[in-house]
Amino acid sequence: MSALRNDSLLRALLRQPVDHTPIWLMRQAGRYLPEYCATRARAGSFLELCKSPSLATEVTLQPLARYDLDAAILFSDILTVPDAMGLGLYFAEGEGPRFERPLREEWAIRDLRAPDPHDHLRYVLDAVAEIRRALDGSVPLIGFSGSPFTLACYMIEGEGSDTYAQAKKLMYARPDLMHHILDVTARAVTDYLNAQIESGAQAVMVFDSWGGMLTQAAYLEFSLPYMARIMAALTREREGRVVPRIVFTKGGGLWLEHIAACGCDAVGLDWSIDIGDARRRVGDRVALQGNMDPTILLTTAAAVTTEAERILASFGQGSGHVFNLGHGISQFTPPEHVSALVETVRARSPAYHGR
Amino acid sequence: MSALRNDSLLRALLRQPVDHTPIWLMRQAGRYLPEYCATRARAGSFLELCKSPSLATEVTLQPLARYDLDAAILFSDILTVPDAMGLGLYFAEGEGPRFERPLREEWAIRDLRAPDPHDHLRYVLDAVAEIRRALDGSVPLIGFSGSPFTLACYMIEGEGSDTYAQAKKLMYARPDLMHHILDVTARAVTDYLNAQIESGAQAVMVFDSWGGMLTQAAYLEFSLPYMARIMAALTREREGRVVPRIVFTKGGGLWLEHIAACGCDAVGLDWSIDIGDARRRVGDRVALQGNMDPTILLTTAAAVTTEAERILASFGQGSGHVFNLGHGISQFTPPEHVSALVETVRARSPAYHGR
Repeated sequence: MSALRNDSLLRALLRQPVDHTPIWLMRQAGRYLPEYCATRARAGSFLELCKSPSLATEVTLQPLARYDLDAAILFSDILTVPDAMGLGLYFAEGEGPRFERPLREEWAIRDLRAPDPHDHLRYVLDAVAEIRRALDGSVPLIGFSGSPFTLACYMIEGEGSDTYAQAKKLMYARPDLMHHILDVTARAVTDYLNAQIESGAQAVMVFDSWGGMLTQAAYLEFSLPYMARIMAALTREREGRVVPRIVFTKGGGLWLEHIAACGCDAVGLDWSIDIGDARRRVGDRVALQGNMDPTILLTTAAAVTTEAERILASFGQGSGHVFNLGHGISQFTPPEHVSALVETVRARSPAYHGR
Repeated sequence: MSALRNDSLLRALLRQPVDHTPIWLMRQAGRYLPEYCATRARAGSFLELCKSPSLATEVTLQPLARYDLDAAILFSDILTVPDAMGLGLYFAEGEGPRFERPLREEWAIRDLRAPDPHDHLRYVLDAVAEIRRALDGSVPLIGFSGSPFTLACYMIEGEGSDTYAQAKKLMYARPDLMHHILDVTARAVTDYLNAQIESGAQAVMVFDSWGGMLTQAAYLEFSLPYMARIMAALTREREGRVVPRIVFTKGGGLWLEHIAACGCDAVGLDWSIDIGDARRRVGDRVALQGNMDPTILLTTAAAVTTEAERILASFGQGSGHVFNLGHGISQFTPPEHVSALVETVRARSPAYHGR
């Protein structure tokens, strides 16, 4: 592997000095880019795009060709793990993800097994390796997975939902079964992320998209402990460097101190929390990643610049900040507003690092 | 008017001693009750139900006939105010609310006027008076309105949305226009709530359903100050009693100290915050209302009881707690689970009040 030329992301995630605040964007390879839409049309479907290592590599690199970003993130879907568990992921035309066989019966839950990622998720590992070769040391590659609780929500519900009432019903009525699903899924996610690291991922992120729907008591029982278990079991070093871990619970701002203590190196923040307040609450325990409201990218370049400057100033001096959005980028984002964002962070952030 | 026989709600909202923790439920008159569905079928539509004082009275009283609740809440919709402003509220079959004339043009925004509730919202005031007569002093009646920011979201978007991207775009691109909408709407809400109080509402609540989608900076600029302005202009006493005010921002837990300082008597909490933590944060500044996850009502009576006891214990000893859900009750709630909830709070809460 080529030596890493821009290691600002890895350094900032470990709160080591950097010369600028690194930036990448959740879902940076996506439908707001015409070149992404062209590749996806060639692939035939979103799932075929995910399952083709060469096409996944192509779209992973597209935003890096346009913007001066400090990291690539594996192009994939969080539902590849339940798919590998045999639930049968598919995408109905114009709809979100669905499972052919959602977890509804106790026997199906008892039968759940953690898949060997080298068998069932080979296409992801091949994509990781191919992206690493293509990046050729320019910027680091982030691997990722959904959190056990978030995956369980989809697995039980069988599709996206505003309330995940089926999942919550199971959780409250049969906590034993919920814990069983989470236990198996946490092992699956651990193996999956370790396989990504082994294949070349230089940092990893766990997306807890739905943990924020829980009460604090339920979050501390059903979501966070399983992420903590994953953190404790991840490969710590690879290629002579620490592999930093990021945990992101959307809507988890109230529980920040708990999340910061789960064994992660960095906490992802949605836009509802002031990042300066978040920093005061976590102190030097973890780095912070975030947290611009992605809707601002729909407005004007001037508003984007103002808000990016506000967030940099709110975090303040020193390392430990990775600039990002507070949620995935909208498909309706004008690509030139992303330029305004990246250029602002590049131009303004060195002042916060003694430059 | 008859003397109020059960004033536990009004006392708890003002943190005065009570003998049990009062309970009512957001959207307690609703589709989970077969008698509500029957009345609604008779009305023809949801909007006709809202606009008929006698039918609105009928459904307002239905949950009180079934359950030992400590308050009635006016049956109405938060969008009656923009409707009275001329935006043309309608409900497409099987869809949420829509406006015929959403606010999209600067001239339409500049033309916006606060309606006189005695002219344009007479049907609501008539319902308030009729409900008060029907309650005959049994429990107090809560009036309500949407918050200026939440109403503005619907008015700009023209319908419900996951992201209210149009509203946020206007807010970031033309903050002057957004402030104009909010200013007019805050005056409209003030007049509307004061007219409800004059007609017999004994407590009022402002629902800020969408303020929680904002960044903290935007919340403190575009949502909270307009609620504070309303608080400062509401009638404080009526019929020889203080009229308590409740403010509820769903997803506002991070900003609790700010909300508690807006001039309200009580803060509504969604279920994401631990109510004991919330109490420690606000001290004796305000009462707290909440905060059970409504999804728990879909599970089992045993789970409902356990969770209700947990919330009572988390708040702890003393007055200042009004038991409620953290969001409106689901239409899929089995009515007998509501019985389990109300009975648990009635049976267990006196121990927290020195009984």
